Amino acid sequence: MNSEQHDALAARYGADAMPPAGPWNPVIAALLAHRSVRAYRPDPLPDGTLETLVAAAQSAATSSNMQTWSVVAVPDPATKAVMAAVANNQKHIEQCPLFLVFLADLSRNERLAAEEGATLEGLPYLETFLVAALDAALAAQNATVAAESLGLSTVYIGALRNDVERVAKALSLPPGTMGVFGLCVGYADPARRAEVKPRLPQPAVLHHGRYDAAEEPAHRAVYDAALAAFSTRNEMNADRWTDRVLARWGKVRTLHGRDELKAALRRLGFPLR
Amino acid sequence: MNSEQHDALAARYGADAMPPAGPWNPVIAALLAHRSVRAYRPDPLPDGTLETLVAAAQSAATSSNMQTWSVVAVPDPATKAVMAAVANNQKHIEQCPLFLVFLADLSRNERLAAEEGATLEGLPYLETFLVAALDAALAAQNATVAAESLGLSTVYIGALRNDVERVAKALSLPPGTMGVFGLCVGYADPARRAEVKPRLPQPAVLHHGRYDAAEEPAHRAVYDAALAAFSTRNEMNADRWTDRVLARWGKVRTLHGRDELKAALRRLGFPLR
Repeated sequence: MNSEQHDALAARYGADAMPPAGPWNPVIAALLAHRSVRAYRPDPLPDGTLETLVAAAQSAATSSNMQTWSVVAVPDPATKAVMAAVANNQKHIEQCPLFLVFLADLSRNERLAAEEGATLEGLPYLETFLVAALDAALAAQNATVAAESLGLSTVYIGALRNDVERVAKALSLPPGTMGVFGLCVGYADPARRAEVKPRLPQPAVLHHGRYDAAEEPAHRAVYDAALAAFSTRNEMNADRWTDRVLARWGKVRTLHGRDELKAALRRLGFPLR
Repeated sequence: MNSEQHDALAARYGADAMPPAGPWNPVIAALLAHRSVRAYRPDPLPDGTLETLVAAAQSAATSSNMQTWSVVAVPDPATKAVMAAVANNQKHIEQCPLFLVFLADLSRNERLAAEEGATLEGLPYLETFLVAALDAALAAQNATVAAESLGLSTVYIGALRNDVERVAKALSLPPGTMGVFGLCVGYADPARRAEVKPRLPQPAVLHHGRYDAAEEPAHRAVYDAALAAFSTRNEMNADRWTDRVLARWGKVRTLHGRDELKAALRRLGFPLR
């Protein structure tokens, strides 16, 4: 294991939970170095950056080549302000030079069928909504990898789901589309440090042959300590991961309106049968 | 635009739908070169490859750092045969040296809460299931990018959702977990050519400020021609994309049992409120 690989794995897992060393190269080093960035310089992106990110996104796998996703680039401050308001006032949405909203999009296929005089019986199902949401996620992750390879940073904004109908209205979305999440893209503000965040030890996530959680409490104890240390170094509260999980999903109100997602999706044209 | 970039964009979009040239580098070239591979050599992977792919996967963003996904590596032929049977007998599942099943996993957080004597009121919602499925997708896409950087190929197996309960039983999954999709990983069989598949023209997918499908029929006509030409070159039927969409979702039976996904998920411990 070379020192770059060692340091990258130690940052991602903590020195007490290093996985076995495997193959290594610059792409894997870049993937391991990911961190979400919530403070951006105002500098614009080079010409053609958006199109390059979308080409990367479209190159991801898509279920049966149905391509059930779309993306809206949101340039104007007024619309970005709406997005920020939906997302509990996350200021980086207004700050970043490029804000993307990735859509689960069954409407394109539905328009196609309408023009052919056909009906797509398979569309109104939970499965088909899930295909569209997963397609959007695979595409967005490729866009993120491409952005980071260009020296840009990103952060996903799942909080757009706090009010998917307000997002739909602001972006003139047709029925059968839904903003799955936003993505801020831009140059990280160098004054705001963003350390790689440790994740759970691999054996807590990776199973061989069958799911086996027997050792999970021990792995979680290691991780609770690693995340508390990370938080202390980054001037946040020294919470354990355990505390954060309890805080995130302990009460329905911590869903910030997303407990109404199913009803909202039905109104947006996803029956979720 | 250098010739590598030109050729990559022409392969992805067809010569009649080239997007504007933006920035370019080896990572973006690798993303653009993705193709799904359905024929593998039996050669095993280098030691530590699985752990490297999982490290890449864990480095992807995860909603609120909740890490609501897991992965099962399926090594034994008997279990792979079950997976192949669920997935309409896709032979590459049994052929590839590494078959991964990515899970939406709320069970880890639920176990944590149980040990703390707490209840996670936020878990039983559609939103929280969606978070877990999206987390799994972001992770899997990073694993795919890492695999391809190592000269390996992949293909997603969404057809595991034909029978999520059979998958759960075969992998001993606890309640609150679900196999979102499989991923074959291995060395592509060089005897089976796999050309980059063209995608929809960018303007059919990328919107500026607001969703606008006014020009969509023209873009789809261009794409129908590009995909028919691709299919002819690759010795498949010369179907238009339009025909494939109608065939994929025209009838409920083309969902291959996935019209029952909602009921199955409830039985697996996702109330989807």
